Amino acid sequence: MSETRLPVTGAALAQALLKPRSVALVGASDDVRKTAGRPLQYLRQSGFAGAVYPVNAQRQTVQGEPAWPNLRALPEVPEHVFVMTPTASVLDTVRDCVALGVPVVTVLASGFSEAGSEGAALEQELKRVAREGGVRLLGPSSLGVVHPATGLVLTANAAFAEPELPQGRTFVASQSGSMIGALVSHGKARGMGFAGLVSVGSEADLSAGEICLATLDDPSIDSYVLFLESLHDGAALRAFAHAAAQRGKPVVAYKLGRSAAAAEMAATHTGALAGEDDVAQAFLQDLGIARVSQFDTLLEAMPLARRMALGSAPATTPGAAPETARRKKTLRVGVVTTTGGGAAMVVDQLGVRGIEVQPPSADTLALLAAAQLPCSPGRVLDLTLAGTRYDVMKPALDILLEAPEFDLIVTVVGSSARFQPELAVKPILDSARHSRPLVAMLVPHAPLALAQLTEAQVPCFKSPETCADAIAALAGRRQPTAALLSAAVPQGAPRALSEAQAYGVLQALHVPHAPVLRLPLVSQQAPALPFDYPVVAKVCSDAIAHKTEVGGVVLNIQDAQGLANAFQTLRTNLAERAPGVPCDEVLVQPMRRGLGEVLIGYRIDPQAGPIIMLAAGGIWAEVMQDRSLRLAPVTLEGAREMIDEVRSLTILRGARGSQPGDLEALAQAVSALSQLAVRPDLQVLEAEVNPLLVLPQGQGVLAVDALVLQASTA
Amino acid sequence: MSETRLPVTGAALAQALLKPRSVALVGASDDVRKTAGRPLQYLRQSGFAGAVYPVNAQRQTVQGEPAWPNLRALPEVPEHVFVMTPTASVLDTVRDCVALGVPVVTVLASGFSEAGSEGAALEQELKRVAREGGVRLLGPSSLGVVHPATGLVLTANAAFAEPELPQGRTFVASQSGSMIGALVSHGKARGMGFAGLVSVGSEADLSAGEICLATLDDPSIDSYVLFLESLHDGAALRAFAHAAAQRGKPVVAYKLGRSAAAAEMAATHTGALAGEDDVAQAFLQDLGIARVSQFDTLLEAMPLARRMALGSAPATTPGAAPETARRKKTLRVGVVTTTGGGAAMVVDQLGVRGIEVQPPSADTLALLAAAQLPCSPGRVLDLTLAGTRYDVMKPALDILLEAPEFDLIVTVVGSSARFQPELAVKPILDSARHSRPLVAMLVPHAPLALAQLTEAQVPCFKSPETCADAIAALAGRRQPTAALLSAAVPQGAPRALSEAQAYGVLQALHVPHAPVLRLPLVSQQAPALPFDYPVVAKVCSDAIAHKTEVGGVVLNIQDAQGLANAFQTLRTNLAERAPGVPCDEVLVQPMRRGLGEVLIGYRIDPQAGPIIMLAAGGIWAEVMQDRSLRLAPVTLEGAREMIDEVRSLTILRGARGSQPGDLEALAQAVSALSQLAVRPDLQVLEAEVNPLLVLPQGQGVLAVDALVLQASTA
Repeated sequence: MSETRLPVTGAALAQALLKPRSVALVGASDDVRKTAGRPLQYLRQSGFAGAVYPVNAQRQTVQGEPAWPNLRALPEVPEHVFVMTPTASVLDTVRDCVALGVPVVTVLASGFSEAGSEGAALEQELKRVAREGGVRLLGPSSLGVVHPATGLVLTANAAFAEPELPQGRTFVASQSGSMIGALVSHGKARGMGFAGLVSVGSEADLSAGEICLATLDDPSIDSYVLFLESLHDGAALRAFAHAAAQRGKPVVAYKLGRSAAAAEMAATHTGALAGEDDVAQAFLQDLGIARVSQFDTLLEAMPLARRMALGSAPATTPGAAPETARRKKTLRVGVVTTTGGGAAMVVDQLGVRGIEVQPPSADTLALLAAAQLPCSPGRVLDLTLAGTRYDVMKPALDILLEAPEFDLIVTVVGSSARFQPELAVKPILDSARHSRPLVAMLVPHAPLALAQLTEAQVPCFKSPETCADAIAALAGRRQPTAALLSAAVPQGAPRALSEAQAYGVLQALHVPHAPVLRLPLVSQQAPALPFDYPVVAKVCSDAIAHKTEVGGVVLNIQDAQGLANAFQTLRTNLAERAPGVPCDEVLVQPMRRGLGEVLIGYRIDPQAGPIIMLAAGGIWAEVMQDRSLRLAPVTLEGAREMIDEVRSLTILRGARGSQPGDLEALAQAVSALSQLAVRPDLQVLEAEVNPLLVLPQGQGVLAVDALVLQASTA
Repeated sequence: MSETRLPVTGAALAQALLKPRSVALVGASDDVRKTAGRPLQYLRQSGFAGAVYPVNAQRQTVQGEPAWPNLRALPEVPEHVFVMTPTASVLDTVRDCVALGVPVVTVLASGFSEAGSEGAALEQELKRVAREGGVRLLGPSSLGVVHPATGLVLTANAAFAEPELPQGRTFVASQSGSMIGALVSHGKARGMGFAGLVSVGSEADLSAGEICLATLDDPSIDSYVLFLESLHDGAALRAFAHAAAQRGKPVVAYKLGRSAAAAEMAATHTGALAGEDDVAQAFLQDLGIARVSQFDTLLEAMPLARRMALGSAPATTPGAAPETARRKKTLRVGVVTTTGGGAAMVVDQLGVRGIEVQPPSADTLALLAAAQLPCSPGRVLDLTLAGTRYDVMKPALDILLEAPEFDLIVTVVGSSARFQPELAVKPILDSARHSRPLVAMLVPHAPLALAQLTEAQVPCFKSPETCADAIAALAGRRQPTAALLSAAVPQGAPRALSEAQAYGVLQALHVPHAPVLRLPLVSQQAPALPFDYPVVAKVCSDAIAHKTEVGGVVLNIQDAQGLANAFQTLRTNLAERAPGVPCDEVLVQPMRRGLGEVLIGYRIDPQAGPIIMLAAGGIWAEVMQDRSLRLAPVTLEGAREMIDEVRSLTILRGARGSQPGDLEALAQAVSALSQLAVRPDLQVLEAEVNPLLVLPQGQGVLAVDALVLQASTA
């Protein structure tokens, strides 16, 4: 093995991956109908200008070109090697690459981590060899890389058989190789082109996040599409998304795993752990990535993504209940139309995604009236047939785009889009350069109008569902904070703290807890208490995570005698149910009741990283899945939004005449607990306050139990 | 006015509406660019064979044809008159039609019920004149009627300017006129044709339900598409849907109003009351109508609807939580694919709609292995690239279609659908005649494959979302019962019963209630009780609907003295808070507690008719919208499904070790209360049991309060 070289990263990585001066095709087949025959055919068809070396030990020629017996025989060190040989031979080829100093190797074969323990071991070895030898690895299970501008069609994907590749400014990274083909064909039909497409395979070394990050300074790339089966290498995705947000390059993602069945499939398919879907949702939204829910939206969202600056609109949450959205600041969308039925579909689809279309204000209606335009009041400005005239639609659009009550205008165009495309499109083209985004939704099948709008880069949609999906996904993005990047993940095995120690952590974070008195378990008499009876007595030991299971809690103690009895009860219970378990302390706390109980939890998700959760208390959290998640740390404002998203907390707002709870104190506690992500000194891996009592407004919140897992440094 | 004639109905109505031998165009314009100029142009362009009479008092000719000054001047009585004159003149024209004996008049003008009280009065008068004169009215606000087979393009919709209308076997009724144009243009692009399209406008006389019912025996029509803004004339829709189900003619509907904003728009747009969306959802599902959630699904669902007999598959509920679906019998869908990523999208989209894709059984995998086909275990049968070969895909499809564990097979086709359409489509075409439905979902943009499948009437989809939407909507249909047709709606003003009388109604229905003792309010002493203390005492009067508001309930009475005191309290409270309100009775009941409380309610929805509701008890029903609805009456099995749909009732199944409740008794109570719909003798308009206590398994349920409104016959 040669001396250790530094693996390529950043711009050098992007160069070798996407714009290599030379490529070798290991296992290239003479038969163009075979998978391993495709890359050579495609590279020649696309006119790739670099050197291409077919490597095939069995043949003198491949597809009429001279073939080389192995990589060592090549006249130069190729910048990018595509290995198409079977699983068993991959390792040897990668060793050759290490020996030669090849910067990037793409591996087509599957049969690694997704194929049981043997495959996983093989993948580990592959990673080790590559990493130690300074070779970057794409795959295994990668269908390859495509870079239309240089004609690099280095892929075994049958979808690239077509000669003309749509070029554009969007870069694609996909965990599914076949979906790259689907994007290209649908993109072609839709007028969307690509700056590059990478099938990342099982991301043994290079991950979607690192690859995208490496391309971020490429001026020919202005936006990103991710097709994700699971979150993988979340740290790289965080770094990429944060940097992309800073550069104003939008990222739109389709992520599988909304249903349990699909999440399970992703897990078996790529060998990755598939997390809970709301964790992925929080991850993407918090990183400013627009997660769309329809595949077609991937192909339609980008022009709007380019127009809608991240953080320009108040955030909302797709899927949030409408009543929640009403309380929160949401994107203020206005709709103008020539067709009432079509507009109603858009209003409906936005509504189910938590965005309530706003009616024009009285001032705006007055301006419309003054301009002799239709101005009947209603949620939508319905111009009816008159709106097919330029001298009606154009001034109406201009008035709406200037109206201070809107952040974005949707124009829903009826049959004129099909029958008079030039006429229907002209007012939209002429108004689309306004600083506020203007979006067109075409109700009929209107390919000409669509093509004209697409050509002019005006956001336009073929269906009310993709229109609403794109708007909601883009509006749901949150500006990624710098704190998300500095989140620290302590290393070490988890070690449980005692409840008393856990309260110490809460104190360090300024999360209020009920007053507590620590007493020796051997106490025979109750001392004077610093708080009133009734009280609760709980065993306190870092060896007892679930106190009730060992009879370690006595509730509702009324007086000193009761407390002394309680100590005896706890001693007896421990002796019976947890003999030998170290425990020498009891916590005494006043019995407190809140207007409601919640659970707040912090943990480090294996892929998403540190997350904070707020959930309805007790059985409701589980049964009703009534919870809100964010990447940690979260600001006070972010915590307020989380409270808005937990539907049952509506009751603590004073619904139906009930007493309102101290939700501001709750927001403070949530934000405070989430600071664990930036408190490496506390070494906390996981913390759960359950329950946290929410007291009446002005009286705060109180943790009355807590469980903390610290990283053991021993 | 002429003598009273019977209005046309049924087949005669369909004839005059869709296949008239002669039409008159009142207000026909000479200018083809004007709305009122279109119908004459379209009829001539389409070669309509019947007589066409332009009527225009201002002109001798219209578009080069002789014009008639008025309807009375025509040489014959036209079978269908299309009135395009302004709102104010419509009534006079309809009077002419009455005088002449015209069977059907279509009214284009708007400005009636949706335009305030004056318009509403005008519409009432229009209806009265038409009804009394035996003229059937389509509209107002109808864009007209299209019947491609006879070239009847009797519409002012600009969308029909194109010469070639796609013909087919699907009949369309739409509350939005403009959406008919959208359906035609998208249908054309998608290979879907129509047997007829009717813009029903505001349904002052003819409703979508009656029109569709009238066409049901037309052999050229085999299916229906409804575009609904609101439910209107629910009785006619019930009758139509029931009859359509009996004839095996599928009905697919898109209904607006999933969001509050759109529901409100529909209300103002058509003048109809827009109901709650889950009422509409229950209405459509119970009547066997597939409600799709994406517009494009309307254009893609029909081939599958024709293949999937109503009631052939166990019902599921779109949108139900996956855990619910798992407990219930759901459609058993199997997926086979050449592309893992594409298949995962379909699995995911089905999963979020409550349909969990089933893996092939061990037996099926063994059959695949014996046939030397790929057979790796997993939720989806992934044939990978091998599946692009006929001799792999065809036998795999045949084995899956024969497998007893599946009701329906989805084949998800990758890039071969685009690059080798004939090859990719052939195994599907050859297997599609199996008795089990086979559905194709094409991942790439593959217009040729799509066209071939569509031509062969094989269910095929362009996106995972429409594919899953169609399957879930069709699987969610329930076979309409005859009882739904015999549901009786009592006439009369609502009159509240006293709680004691309400219990009488519950007894008649066999809904159990807590034992009750009726005592005079004037009682000074407590008698011996037939049940134990503690008890509750409640004032009982049909004049007091909300007892707690007048201090009319005393809880937790421990003994006879307490009961005597309670009587005094009740008398005092009534005297203070409800002076003069007649009340001379008190109900005494034992205090009972259940494991949980629910609300069951019966009411007659103005559009949907009798409905039964089961909801979580207390504040949860409101905050979490945790309820299930059905048209009444509902069978025991239907009631069990309703229980499955109320998410918080999971707790009563014994979740997390809690004691299970008597959910079977709950199902009996729900079904029993719903029988009100077929008990005209009880004359009940509305009944609410709140709370109904759910006792531990085997101990039943108990109503402990009830409110019943009867139709006053006085």
